[in-house]
Amino acid sequence: MALIECIPNISEGRRPDVVADMASAIRAVPGVRLLDFSSDASHNRSVFTLAGDAAGVEQAVMALFERAVAAIDLRTHHGEHPRMGAVDVVPFVPIEGVTMAECVALAKKVGAAVADRFKIPVYLYEDASTNPARKNLEDIRRGEFEGLAAKMATQGWAPDFGPSAPHPSAGAAVIGARMALIAYNINLATDRLDVAKKIAAAIRHSSGGYRYVKAAGFKLEDRGIVQVSMNLTNYEKTPIFRVFETVKREAERYGVSILESEIVGLVPSAALNAAAEFYLQIEGFKSDQVLENKLRTEN
Amino acid sequence: MALIECIPNISEGRRPDVVADMASAIRAVPGVRLLDFSSDASHNRSVFTLAGDAAGVEQAVMALFERAVAAIDLRTHHGEHPRMGAVDVVPFVPIEGVTMAECVALAKKVGAAVADRFKIPVYLYEDASTNPARKNLEDIRRGEFEGLAAKMATQGWAPDFGPSAPHPSAGAAVIGARMALIAYNINLATDRLDVAKKIAAAIRHSSGGYRYVKAAGFKLEDRGIVQVSMNLTNYEKTPIFRVFETVKREAERYGVSILESEIVGLVPSAALNAAAEFYLQIEGFKSDQVLENKLRTEN
Repeated sequence: MALIECIPNISEGRRPDVVADMASAIRAVPGVRLLDFSSDASHNRSVFTLAGDAAGVEQAVMALFERAVAAIDLRTHHGEHPRMGAVDVVPFVPIEGVTMAECVALAKKVGAAVADRFKIPVYLYEDASTNPARKNLEDIRRGEFEGLAAKMATQGWAPDFGPSAPHPSAGAAVIGARMALIAYNINLATDRLDVAKKIAAAIRHSSGGYRYVKAAGFKLEDRGIVQVSMNLTNYEKTPIFRVFETVKREAERYGVSILESEIVGLVPSAALNAAAEFYLQIEGFKSDQVLENKLRTEN
Repeated sequence: MALIECIPNISEGRRPDVVADMASAIRAVPGVRLLDFSSDASHNRSVFTLAGDAAGVEQAVMALFERAVAAIDLRTHHGEHPRMGAVDVVPFVPIEGVTMAECVALAKKVGAAVADRFKIPVYLYEDASTNPARKNLEDIRRGEFEGLAAKMATQGWAPDFGPSAPHPSAGAAVIGARMALIAYNINLATDRLDVAKKIAAAIRHSSGGYRYVKAAGFKLEDRGIVQVSMNLTNYEKTPIFRVFETVKREAERYGVSILESEIVGLVPSAALNAAAEFYLQIEGFKSDQVLENKLRTEN
């Protein structure tokens, strides 16, 4: 069965009843699971994590837009987090039995449907982007809701779908497809912040490191140690084990060893299996040898 | 959801229609998945692999007994593999959200039901055994169907459930609970069979090695290399990574390195995750952080 994860971000984090109503709407879609949702009052923003097949997640996202457009007015919305739409961002993530190309196609289908039904302009981002200048969410969202009308009037910012001006109350939406993101931290057995920062610089893409790694060095004051905190944005192309081994080697250079690592939140099974395969030198392993995967694909 | 694997072995491997009928009966049980089944004509034996919750696998096993008792007569059965029952062995294996104690309870419940309904004597084995002399399948089955009546009449061989003499055509059944078994091979970059045999002896339980490892050394003639072939009978207590690291270290002693390893057939996700946790030094990891596990436990 195709399994797609979807993590819509909406611009409402202060009215629990409104958010709960949206959660109910998602849960009501057959075959869709709402894995998690949380609101941040200072950001005035909520994040839903749901999963299902293409038809299910599409239906859930449409139901979410319907409620968000009715309940959220960005003209009176304030919060610390940048935003430009009532439903601000909708990424589709391939998890199992589905390709990135299929998630891109789904993003385009949902984008067209949202534009058509709600008259909201839609920008495609990440793997669904059709324009290199509009691949990163930050670039698309720069200027936020308040600057959106002016931005949309400039060259290169006509939306991928929908009207050429913002929806009066719901702004615009960014919809796309991306790989699952893994939040991964490595704690070092030292209190030397300079070591964590040097290692972070060595492995992150922006300063010459691995293409799908974002990293920063932090001090964990209460424990007297330091941490290399990372986002792995494509675990197939830059796998966890390679990042771990590189951090370990770089730390050795300073006489520092790895105390432990931690995965924050969810991780796809395939990302862990790849580490097992690497270290155990397992040849010819197929994902349907994992009993649980077999269970979900056969009858 | 509780997930139990069950791998019944039946004494019929030469009549495909009979085996297919049994497979259909298993598939017809709601909530039960038939993952695999295969027949061996020279053994005159078939193995089914199914999974589901306790109620589902119980119903499937009862349906299998019904068909096996009707179709198989051990008085005219011949095959290379030792056997003493029409349904010869039925292990229940905890996979997820279920304890070994619950699988033991299920084995006893099914054992009592089989004895009651089909008048077949039942012996409990492995973790469900109530008698140290009757823990190993080989000990219980020694003498096979032909020697069963005499064996049952001797002291210590009254069955756990059912009549004190064999069923005329269906013999007796061995039912129990055990951990998932992992068939795991490590190939060495050498043609020295003595090295594979020495390493097998070092790691297997019978000659002083790890408690839940069975191992033997073989030559892979066509590839000019040797293999340490293993069964890991409890991957929680003797994990894959520890066995791998020990084989690697023992091989170094002879100047030999590991070429690759392979997992034959199915492996529980938890066994692979444990290897990833070990090598990546992941602290505080919980199985519901695996996205696919989360999907199956929440709504």
